[in-house]
Formats: sequence, structure tokens, C-alpha cells
Amino acid sequence: MRKIDPVKHEQKRRDILEAAGRCFAKDGFRGASISSICSEAKISAGHLYHYFASKEAIIEAMAATGLEHAEARFNHLMKSDNPIEGLIAEIEQANTQSCSAQQHQIDMRAKKQLHVDMLAEAGRNPAMAEIVNQHSTKIRGMLATLLETAQKRGQIDQTLDPDLAAAILLSAMEGVGNMTMRDPELDMKKKLEMLSTLIKRFLTPSSGK
Amino acid sequence: MRKIDPVKHEQKRRDILEAAGRCFAKDGFRGASISSICSEAKISAGHLYHYFASKEAIIEAMAATGLEHAEARFNHLMKSDNPIEGLIAEIEQANTQSCSAQQHQIDMRAKKQLHVDMLAEAGRNPAMAEIVNQHSTKIRGMLATLLETAQKRGQIDQTLDPDLAAAILLSAMEGVGNMTMRDPELDMKKKLEMLSTLIKRFLTPSSGK
Repeated sequence: MRKIDPVKHEQKRRDILEAAGRCFAKDGFRGASISSICSEAKISAGHLYHYFASKEAIIEAMAATGLEHAEARFNHLMKSDNPIEGLIAEIEQANTQSCSAQQHQIDMRAKKQLHVDMLAEAGRNPAMAEIVNQHSTKIRGMLATLLETAQKRGQIDQTLDPDLAAAILLSAMEGVGNMTMRDPELDMKKKLEMLSTLIKRFLTPSSGK
Repeated sequence: MRKIDPVKHEQKRRDILEAAGRCFAKDGFRGASISSICSEAKISAGHLYHYFASKEAIIEAMAATGLEHAEARFNHLMKSDNPIEGLIAEIEQANTQSCSAQQHQIDMRAKKQLHVDMLAEAGRNPAMAEIVNQHSTKIRGMLATLLETAQKRGQIDQTLDPDLAAAILLSAMEGVGNMTMRDPELDMKKKLEMLSTLIKRFLTPSSGK
């Protein structure tokens, strides 16, 4: 039996994920074929299946990476003095970067497009629906925990159900991202300011009752 | 020259739109072919082109119908004493119906799916991007006008920019709709209650500054 070098294996796995990301951005989840991913990753189809059993498995691995990143950010937020301000800063940081970073704009757009493609696919593909549902539930759980912690500290309104409040906040954030696809002309900075106003007013204890 | 009966023409046009709606719901905008729409509408391809030049033209006609409906609802809201309460009632009415109406649930899901499909398609199809952008801009304009009117009457916070506030509110509503696709288990009624809390807190004059 040939021995697998774990470092090389991991590197190849990452190469495939990046190649798949480029293919999905270009042609969508449904439009991108396994063979186009193989060609982009410079790998044979037989070889690819050593790493991923299906396109869904590739998406699942991408989602897992996103989740790890989110987990790290939430852990960081949990330690901050003011979770609302921290959350808003995170959202702003995720959505804006120095304007010169044109590559970032392109990456953001590709990421947003992939999210919408996955959601569209989930309506017709039970495997994708499962991935999207799992991912969404986990992110919501993290935000709900953050809200609960802030409630205990008296920093946000204690009458709000944390899980539902998390669901509504994530919905608003998702919608703001999609708004960029609906109307690219709308000023991102102003939109984020308005979103932060909405989040603060929604969560602030004084507005409770 | 054959004379066109305007009543029959309009009826056929509507039949095609309904048939296309069923095809889009089943296979998505990209997946549904003109020939499958023709077959569903029991019409030849040559005949269909008398009514619509392309799939995009079909979507445009559907969007126009949606806009007419929205216009009527906004005109109704403009006359109501309390636009915030009116808006929330509209959202609730649009999202819930008597639970026995299973057909309504299926229709809602198909409608939501079509919205997500259109958004996904817009990222790669300039004609669709134009339709989505026009539609979004018009709906936002209507909501902004409603907010402005309520501001003049002192019913909502006058410091909010109406256009941006409308954009953020529509984003939150869109996200809540998508949340249903991400997690069908989340209780719609509770979600809508939380959304209405968010809208009220965001807009209420007392929370200004």
C-alpha cells in the first residue's frame, strides 16, 4: 500500500477546495461539473474522489471551514466587554476593507454568490438543504449564546428570546448582503451604519417592553 | 391579417405565465427550458414567441404583476392611521394564512424559491440583474415614501434616512423569508413576532438619537 503524506494530502485537499471555489463562482454549484473542477485543480477525476465523494462533499468542507472561522470570531466576541459593539465591528470588518483592495470586492461578491447559489440549490437538493440547515443552525446557536451571555451581563434586553433574536439578526445581515446583489449602487458604508442602528435599537435594554 | 382578440390574448398570456411559474418552481429559472414551458402551457414554441421574446421577458412580466400588487398594498397603507402597524400586519398577512391552507404553504415556498433563483441568476445574467435591480429599486422607493409620510406625521423617527431605512427593512424581511428555506422547523409565527419587535424598535420615534 502506498503511504499517504498527511502534509501533501492536506495541501492537495486545499488546492481542490480553492479550484472548486473558482468553478462555483464562475458557473454556480449546479453549472460547475466535477470534470471542470478536476481540470481547474489539475487532477484526474479518479484522483479527486480520493479527497471528495461528491460536489456536495466539497461544499460541506467549505462550509466547515467557514464555521471554524465563525467559531473563532464568536469566541473572540465572547471575551469582549461590549458584545453589541463587538458584533457590529465584526460585521463592518467582514463587509468592508480598504477600498483599494479590489480583489477583496471580487472575493466578497463570489462568496455572496455562492451563498445564494447554495440557498437556491437547497430548495431542490436534499443533501444541500441538509448542509445549509446544519450550517445555519450552528451559526445561529453561536449568536444565541453570545446574546444570552450579554443578557446575563445586563448589556442587552433580557426579554428577547436569544434563539429567535439571533435568527432575526442573521436574517437582517443576510438580507443586507443580498441587497448588494440587488442594487450594487447602494452605498455599503451607509447601509452598514443603518444596519448597526437597527441592531443597537433592537437589542438595547432601554427599548425593552 | 388575422385579428387578435384582446381578451383571448390576455387569457393566453396569463396561462403562459402560470405554466412558466410551475416550470420555474420545479426546475429553476436556468433549468426550465422554453420547450418545457411550451409543453406545460400546451402551446408551440413559435406561438409562445408571439407573447414573450425570452425567459427573461416572462420573468419581467411576473415581476410587473408583483409590483402592481405591491403598489396596491402600499397605496392602502398610505391611507392607514398607523403605517408601522399597517406594515407589520401586511407582512404577517403575506407570510401566514390559516394553517389548513396547505396549498398556500406550497405557493409561498415556490415564490420564495423563485426569488432566490432570480437573485442567483442575476449574478451571472445581466438581463436578470437589470430586472432584479429595477424591481428592488421600485419596492424600496414605495417603502421609502411610506416612511417619509409617517415621519412627517411624527409617527416614526425623523432622523432616519427614509431610503436607507427602507433598504434595511426590506433586507430584514428578505432574510426572514430565506430563513424559512434555511431552517423550515423555525416557528413562522414566533419569527414574525420577533421581526415586528425589531421593526417597531427600529422605527419608533422615542428610540431616536
